[in-house]
Amino acid sequence: MTESIKNKIRTIPNFPKQGIMFRDITTLLKDKDGLREVVEILEKKYKDIEFDYVVGIESRGFIIGGILAHKLGIGFIPIRKKGKLPSEVIKEEYDLEYGKDVIEIHKDSLKKGDKILLLDDLIATGGTALASCKLIEKVGAIVEECASIIDLPELGGSKKINDYLKKNDDEKKVFSIVQFEGE
Amino acid sequence: MTESIKNKIRTIPNFPKQGIMFRDITTLLKDKDGLREVVEILEKKYKDIEFDYVVGIESRGFIIGGILAHKLGIGFIPIRKKGKLPSEVIKEEYDLEYGKDVIEIHKDSLKKGDKILLLDDLIATGGTALASCKLIEKVGAIVEECASIIDLPELGGSKKINDYLKKNDDEKKVFSIVQFEGE
Repeated sequence: MTESIKNKIRTIPNFPKQGIMFRDITTLLKDKDGLREVVEILEKKYKDIEFDYVVGIESRGFIIGGILAHKLGIGFIPIRKKGKLPSEVIKEEYDLEYGKDVIEIHKDSLKKGDKILLLDDLIATGGTALASCKLIEKVGAIVEECASIIDLPELGGSKKINDYLKKNDDEKKVFSIVQFEGE
Repeated sequence: MTESIKNKIRTIPNFPKQGIMFRDITTLLKDKDGLREVVEILEKKYKDIEFDYVVGIESRGFIIGGILAHKLGIGFIPIRKKGKLPSEVIKEEYDLEYGKDVIEIHKDSLKKGDKILLLDDLIATGGTALASCKLIEKVGAIVEECASIIDLPELGGSKKINDYLKKNDDEKKVFSIVQFEGE
């Protein structure tokens, strides 16, 4: 099933800039079987774990994040870019290749001890996902698991996030459905 | 059920600027019963109508749009802000209070005759939703229905879109779960 999902992801060379192989999930999400299979895999993996919320990262993380929250019967909370959330926020800054970026979450959206499933579409260098983990922890909530449709393991993000989240050597806290390496 | 949904939507005065009463759905989506009820209403309304795709408008339209596509067993297609989609796009420009904005859809995402359920979180003046209808029609696809969680009828957007989409006087092409008027 994973191979058929991978085949539905389109690669666009040189987007958003020269040298980047952009993995485009729009072709996967528009395919009804592809969308269903992605949700089935994530639901199966997480249905027996107790979470309070799915937190999805703007904006592609909203699509699968929303579906998964609904399937698991829990609520959905967005992490957004700067200035988008209307009520009081907490912020986390993180480094980009050039410059910095900021993500925000509503301060009152989480409470201490809330168990979170963090969702994004893709993990590359892991900058946004790691900043999201720190943002969630700032209010005392716990990132129990971090999931994505795609991982680019060569960029080291998924390992970095797993090292950050795991409480012992054997723990695997980061999951992706498909991986792209050297292709 | 609609009243309980409305009560879960938070109003933030003066966001994003003075004089605007911002209707914040994050409090609704984080509530597991609220999220479930929203999805139930939309699923019930649309389950017997034949659509090819749900098209969701960036970025809050991605959350409920994704869930609804999954529930209806069809694919999801995003309409995004300028420069976000990686492959060839078609564009539609529309007027803002000051200046203009552009939305885009992948050119190859739709084909002639595709039946579309268009989804956004809120219809206010209807500028974005109307531009989205025109964008979808540019490739020959058909916006069969346009749905939102919230309508602000006093701003006239839902009427404008319905007038644009309806093929005869009685047709009701635009649906919202809750309405905020003079409050």
